[in-house]
Amino acid sequence: MRIYPFGQHDAASPCHEQDAGVTDETIMLGRKGAGLRTMSRLSVPVPPGFVIPASACTAYFAHGDASLSQIWPEVERGLLGIEEARGQRFGDPDSPLLVSVRSGASVSMPGMMDTVLNVGLNPSTVDGLAARSGDLRFALDTWRRYIESYAPIVLGIDPELLVRLRESFLDDAQPLGLDLQSPELLRGLTKTYLEHVARAFGAPFPVDPRAQLRAAIAGVFRSWNNRRAIQFREQNGIDPLLGTAVTIQAMVFGNRDAASATGVAFTRCPNTGERRLFGEYLPNAQGEDVVRGGVTPLPIEASDGAPGLVPMSEAMPEAYAELLRLAGLLEGHFRDVQDLEFTVERGKVWMLQTREAKRSARALVRTAVEMADEGLITRDEALLRVEPSRLLLLLQPCVDVHSRRRVIGKGLPASPGAVSGVVVFDSDEAVRRAGEGERVILVRAETSTEDLPGMRAAVGILTARGGMTSHAALVARGMGRCCVTGCSNLSVNERTRKFTVRDLGLTIEEGTIITLDGVTGEVILGEAATSPAEPPASYHTLMAWADARRRLSVRGTADTLAEADLALQHGAEGIGICRTERMFLEPDRLEYVRDLILADDDRSRRAALDRLLPGQRRDFSALFERMQGLPVAIRLLDLPLHEFLTDVPAELESVAARLGMPLDVLVYKVRTLKAENPVLGHRGCRLGLTFPEVYEVQVRAIIEGALDVAFSGEIQIVVPMVVAVEEIARLRRRIRSHVSRICDERSAKSPTLAIGAMIEVPRACLIADQLALVCDFFLFGTNDLTMTTFGTHRDDASRFLPFYLEHEVLRADPFVTLDLEGVGSLVALAVERGRRTRPDLSCGLTGGQIADAASIEFCHELGIDFVSCPPHLVPGARLAAARAAVLGDLA
Amino acid sequence: MRIYPFGQHDAASPCHEQDAGVTDETIMLGRKGAGLRTMSRLSVPVPPGFVIPASACTAYFAHGDASLSQIWPEVERGLLGIEEARGQRFGDPDSPLLVSVRSGASVSMPGMMDTVLNVGLNPSTVDGLAARSGDLRFALDTWRRYIESYAPIVLGIDPELLVRLRESFLDDAQPLGLDLQSPELLRGLTKTYLEHVARAFGAPFPVDPRAQLRAAIAGVFRSWNNRRAIQFREQNGIDPLLGTAVTIQAMVFGNRDAASATGVAFTRCPNTGERRLFGEYLPNAQGEDVVRGGVTPLPIEASDGAPGLVPMSEAMPEAYAELLRLAGLLEGHFRDVQDLEFTVERGKVWMLQTREAKRSARALVRTAVEMADEGLITRDEALLRVEPSRLLLLLQPCVDVHSRRRVIGKGLPASPGAVSGVVVFDSDEAVRRAGEGERVILVRAETSTEDLPGMRAAVGILTARGGMTSHAALVARGMGRCCVTGCSNLSVNERTRKFTVRDLGLTIEEGTIITLDGVTGEVILGEAATSPAEPPASYHTLMAWADARRRLSVRGTADTLAEADLALQHGAEGIGICRTERMFLEPDRLEYVRDLILADDDRSRRAALDRLLPGQRRDFSALFERMQGLPVAIRLLDLPLHEFLTDVPAELESVAARLGMPLDVLVYKVRTLKAENPVLGHRGCRLGLTFPEVYEVQVRAIIEGALDVAFSGEIQIVVPMVVAVEEIARLRRRIRSHVSRICDERSAKSPTLAIGAMIEVPRACLIADQLALVCDFFLFGTNDLTMTTFGTHRDDASRFLPFYLEHEVLRADPFVTLDLEGVGSLVALAVERGRRTRPDLSCGLTGGQIADAASIEFCHELGIDFVSCPPHLVPGARLAAARAAVLGDLA
Repeated sequence: MRIYPFGQHDAASPCHEQDAGVTDETIMLGRKGAGLRTMSRLSVPVPPGFVIPASACTAYFAHGDASLSQIWPEVERGLLGIEEARGQRFGDPDSPLLVSVRSGASVSMPGMMDTVLNVGLNPSTVDGLAARSGDLRFALDTWRRYIESYAPIVLGIDPELLVRLRESFLDDAQPLGLDLQSPELLRGLTKTYLEHVARAFGAPFPVDPRAQLRAAIAGVFRSWNNRRAIQFREQNGIDPLLGTAVTIQAMVFGNRDAASATGVAFTRCPNTGERRLFGEYLPNAQGEDVVRGGVTPLPIEASDGAPGLVPMSEAMPEAYAELLRLAGLLEGHFRDVQDLEFTVERGKVWMLQTREAKRSARALVRTAVEMADEGLITRDEALLRVEPSRLLLLLQPCVDVHSRRRVIGKGLPASPGAVSGVVVFDSDEAVRRAGEGERVILVRAETSTEDLPGMRAAVGILTARGGMTSHAALVARGMGRCCVTGCSNLSVNERTRKFTVRDLGLTIEEGTIITLDGVTGEVILGEAATSPAEPPASYHTLMAWADARRRLSVRGTADTLAEADLALQHGAEGIGICRTERMFLEPDRLEYVRDLILADDDRSRRAALDRLLPGQRRDFSALFERMQGLPVAIRLLDLPLHEFLTDVPAELESVAARLGMPLDVLVYKVRTLKAENPVLGHRGCRLGLTFPEVYEVQVRAIIEGALDVAFSGEIQIVVPMVVAVEEIARLRRRIRSHVSRICDERSAKSPTLAIGAMIEVPRACLIADQLALVCDFFLFGTNDLTMTTFGTHRDDASRFLPFYLEHEVLRADPFVTLDLEGVGSLVALAVERGRRTRPDLSCGLTGGQIADAASIEFCHELGIDFVSCPPHLVPGARLAAARAAVLGDLA
Repeated sequence: MRIYPFGQHDAASPCHEQDAGVTDETIMLGRKGAGLRTMSRLSVPVPPGFVIPASACTAYFAHGDASLSQIWPEVERGLLGIEEARGQRFGDPDSPLLVSVRSGASVSMPGMMDTVLNVGLNPSTVDGLAARSGDLRFALDTWRRYIESYAPIVLGIDPELLVRLRESFLDDAQPLGLDLQSPELLRGLTKTYLEHVARAFGAPFPVDPRAQLRAAIAGVFRSWNNRRAIQFREQNGIDPLLGTAVTIQAMVFGNRDAASATGVAFTRCPNTGERRLFGEYLPNAQGEDVVRGGVTPLPIEASDGAPGLVPMSEAMPEAYAELLRLAGLLEGHFRDVQDLEFTVERGKVWMLQTREAKRSARALVRTAVEMADEGLITRDEALLRVEPSRLLLLLQPCVDVHSRRRVIGKGLPASPGAVSGVVVFDSDEAVRRAGEGERVILVRAETSTEDLPGMRAAVGILTARGGMTSHAALVARGMGRCCVTGCSNLSVNERTRKFTVRDLGLTIEEGTIITLDGVTGEVILGEAATSPAEPPASYHTLMAWADARRRLSVRGTADTLAEADLALQHGAEGIGICRTERMFLEPDRLEYVRDLILADDDRSRRAALDRLLPGQRRDFSALFERMQGLPVAIRLLDLPLHEFLTDVPAELESVAARLGMPLDVLVYKVRTLKAENPVLGHRGCRLGLTFPEVYEVQVRAIIEGALDVAFSGEIQIVVPMVVAVEEIARLRRRIRSHVSRICDERSAKSPTLAIGAMIEVPRACLIADQLALVCDFFLFGTNDLTMTTFGTHRDDASRFLPFYLEHEVLRADPFVTLDLEGVGSLVALAVERGRRTRPDLSCGLTGGQIADAASIEFCHELGIDFVSCPPHLVPGARLAAARAAVLGDLA
């Protein structure tokens, strides 16, 4: 075991290696230690010090104090190096060297472990410090703080004891006009501290600097296993055997004099990404003062902060210039925006820490693009810098976090956005008020198919129950509506048209204005300030690079014209799936659909069909007009029949009257159509085969719609729920002959047409080699495929999936992240088997999981041709596809 | 193209090849022709003849009459051979040779195609025949029959024309005292026939024998494509291009004199399998007289037929002895029971046909076993002779088919047996009446879980709806109850306690006695005579051979003690799955189960658990006592919770009162537990993980039950619905520690215990390599696996599966026959992946498909270790497993 010095003579070797990211040194010495070593190599001025590697921590837990004796000679060597560099001696009563003892793991565990400052201070060195600094108060205050941190961390004293002592001391001192600024009081207080700590500890407070250091090192090691740290590691899946490195470093003091200061700086603005030094500093102060508040920090450059505040660039121009130079040096070395901590001691700038800067989505995109333009990183690297989920935040308005707002609930951020509107409790009311121009928020315990018109009419949706993949969440994401689900402290009473906020004892009536924050999941009373979506220019540059880089085509999932427009606007290369259920559920058509399903004879069936055709044809021709030249995949109807039916008595009576059918016959028919397990029932192509009229009218509407606008793209007809070769073979023949007939009727050439199967049931995957022979393409539907592969319905899963995720029975919700082991392996098998018999088989994939970058990476690796996702997710998918291509080339 | 002679000089070459079964000659010459050729080779006396191969039929359909000219020289060569062998000439007016022209395909199509007898007869040869036989009536009658068959078959005359002519002729002749026995009338009738046929045909009736023959051959060819034959081929999947061969053979006459006769014989009794000649004959008669009835045929041996009838063995001892010799020769050659047609002409025995005899299940088993004992066939062959489904018929009583009975409906034979009892319409009434000692038949539109007590109390179950895999069918087969489902001409009104038979206009009230025939699916009014199940000794021999031969272990599926007993009695080697749901649904326990599910606090939960334990422990200890030394697999609870709950208001009130819970809270709880898709919901181990008390009480009951009787077999605990490694890993740990605790409490050694997963969801198959590491065994559940792989619920499938089967979208019902392409390929993948990481992994398989021999063959080939099926199916499964082993060795 050896120590690793920095800021010392023998440590300043030139820096050759690329040490951005996690290197071996990071693992051994922690992020902080490795950063200091790197800065030292770069000749950045850092207070001299050394790092005890993390392996010593592991040894400490294995062998206890004995392990410290083993490394002690090395510690002494390190100390000697610091003493030489600083020209001070550790424990010297005249000019004492003080050091900090800091934890630092290879993974970020912010604030979880302990740090001890000012080690080396004792009653005699305190006097030396006072004499040398000429500031008795400073020295005594440092001494007080030292005891207050050392006693709990190193000696295990209850910090409350010290707080109580201090308060009673202050109470006693108040009549005397003394406070914590008075040296007299500090002298007495520190003396009292020492007495009480000795009594509680059962031994005198250690005054020998080396004993202090040794105990401080052990204390920092032990903090690796404090309760907070263990919990954090469990939550973040961090290996508990890593251990923490310990950095021992000379103290520098930003509170030494007027030419001293402390501050934090970003090499580029973390909010906008603008390329200039951004940050705050405090003259004549220590680091913790900046954090503590009470004192207002000053800006580093003139453009930041309120007017009238003197920026560092003016107050300390030399130090500022040096800081600017160091910032450039470090950013250039690490090739990313740095978050810096620095101290100016008597005019000299010391760098205490450098790390990758956290930044806003906007800044992330801008810095990535600009750094690539500057040649600092490659375009591939720029693409890898931006996570698709963060990209999407740029496209959504969001609640201004600094605005005053009253949060009355917090649910799951099911669909992003920020909207305000009046509360309504049912679909009809939502449609009515929206029709009158109001912005409404639909509030339900949970939603179902019946709520679709209301969800479409609303600007936002709030539910008390349901998760990220509940009906409400899926539909809202599909529609791009802002949505908060599972807001469990709300009780929604749809009958009385009120909801109550249980923990606040608050009741909200219909018509009240609320705001939903789809990014945080917050529900806010009243109208909160929001910022609109305005993607910066760099966004468009990045997307252009992504498009050039990716192989996977990205299409939009669109059931309406508005969605198709949004998809195009977001760069979709076609429609990956247009689900036709909506067309059948339109209120003015639903009636005819019911007639069709319930008709007992050919005449009524034909009549219903004739009435259904024109509306659908209009919808399709409008869609095709928008999508000229692009591929459009249309899935034939895939709803269980009973979903179209009603059990509302009045509606039943009107249907019966229209069809001239006795009411009890109708009720019986409706009942027999109801499935026990609708998902596993009479739906998809099963319906298309047994009720051929439904697909017949759909195909006619599609083809006539395309002919009406001379559509030049490819139409892909998708047959849902295929499990047997004969299903698709039969329907293909039927559709092809139907199309020929329609084209003959119009003496028109057939539009470009492909017919394929939706692969959404395991059996389809297993027989993919045979299916491929009768399919022009496969479209994997991973929502249903996940349901059947897991034997788990998305809605019913809410009863156990939260438990599963919490207890890590499953690592992720398979409806959100594609389950690679199960569903993914089945998709891979299907692609492999399908292309075995038809090597050029085109494969698409759609499902809720396409919001997840890992799922898209999987699709890229598998050689899927296109993915389809809701319009507002298209940009994220384009970026994810490009990143997958980059990663694929790296692998 | 050549012809294939037999019964002639140059055809009697010795027979070397084994020609049992389908040979090349059978395909070329048809079964009949090949049989005649074989007999000829064996020097069995057959009337001389020759066969025109089936390829000539194909040529006829391709080239029409021209093709006949091509083969004609060969036909002439064949005729010459016959003439030489018989010493007669075709068309000779003095001693005319007559021939039959018969169809004969390579597959059996009984009665579908045409045959023309007595070809060669015309006004002048009729006289020759009369003169030579000395029987004018015989000759004229033969002439009449010839015209009656030739005119429709060959000339295409409407047979009604001849019937009308004959009737009017008879009417006219009646006053004269003439009938069809009088030569005068026959002479006149045949003359009239010829006139009218000539008029209808537009040409004279062909009198030239060669013209007759040529047209007859063409007529028989054409009959390959008559409507009946086409329909039969479609139904039986026979290739329409095969064509029929044509056999032309000299006529012999059993009606020649008192030393002539005709008959049919079996080489062993087709009913009992007894080894003796069995059959009937008629002296001085032709073949069709035996078939036609009116005349009572006489027995061949003394022991058959009513006393007083003179058997052939006494009436014609020499012919009988010759018949016996030929029967032995043919059985010995074909190594199977033969069904013979013979004619005695003037004391000489001619064999006209030999074929494999159809026989009863009893005879099938006995002849197979005895032939193996005699050394005629091997034991392996004996096993292959008996189809498992036929074996099972031996174990079920059946309705005596010869009894007088009034069939009022016919449904699907869902579960075999024959039972009579009084009709009841609900479960409670069934339980009540059965309690009073009545035998009841439960009649329902369809059944559900609520009917289980009534189904158990009943001797038979009849439903108007549902198929072979409906709830009623599955439960009945599981319980071994006789059951008829889908009897669609019945309307069941459970409210008025009546069912009506729609087509008969009959109403049956509760309390009426009916009989169900579970073999035919017939519903019979009143009590029909039944024969009890009495498997013959040969059954036990065959089963012993099967057990010695098979590798696959067969266990019983048993939820009750009675089922376990039956399984043992039927040779099960353990319990393959004991489903514990029933224990929870017992009326006296259901109450506590509800308390358990609905309990809000630990105290009530614990109280419910304590009350549930003793009954279950008793059940398990009784089961273990029975199964000492054998493996018993027990599946932990796998029902969605809501199935235990009620929505009957009165019951809800009583539950609420018992739990001290407000009624509305209870109603809400019950409602939230209801799943939209129960099959894909909160069930199986999902329940075991989230409601750990349920499995806890089950494991305790199992282990304590085993300890109570010092169970010496292996307990296999099966965890249902596993889809993730962590599910089973967690439950294993929990079960193991629970078992240790229980054994510690009792200071007992743990019973032999294995813990494995039910593999019934596709994901489990896909991750089998990982699952195998935490499973002692896999138990495939192909009912649920089929549902999830097909995305098809068994019950909801009734809406489209019948359509799919009818239109051959699917070849078989996957809930009845294991779907090898889909589900089977998934099972194979799971076994392969599982054994990749754990080569010794034990695999079992259970499901409704285990009633199907092909599914068992699949299990054998895959290396599955055991299958589990309902007790009454165990013998069939044992046999099927043995046959699979035999076939495996042959392959």
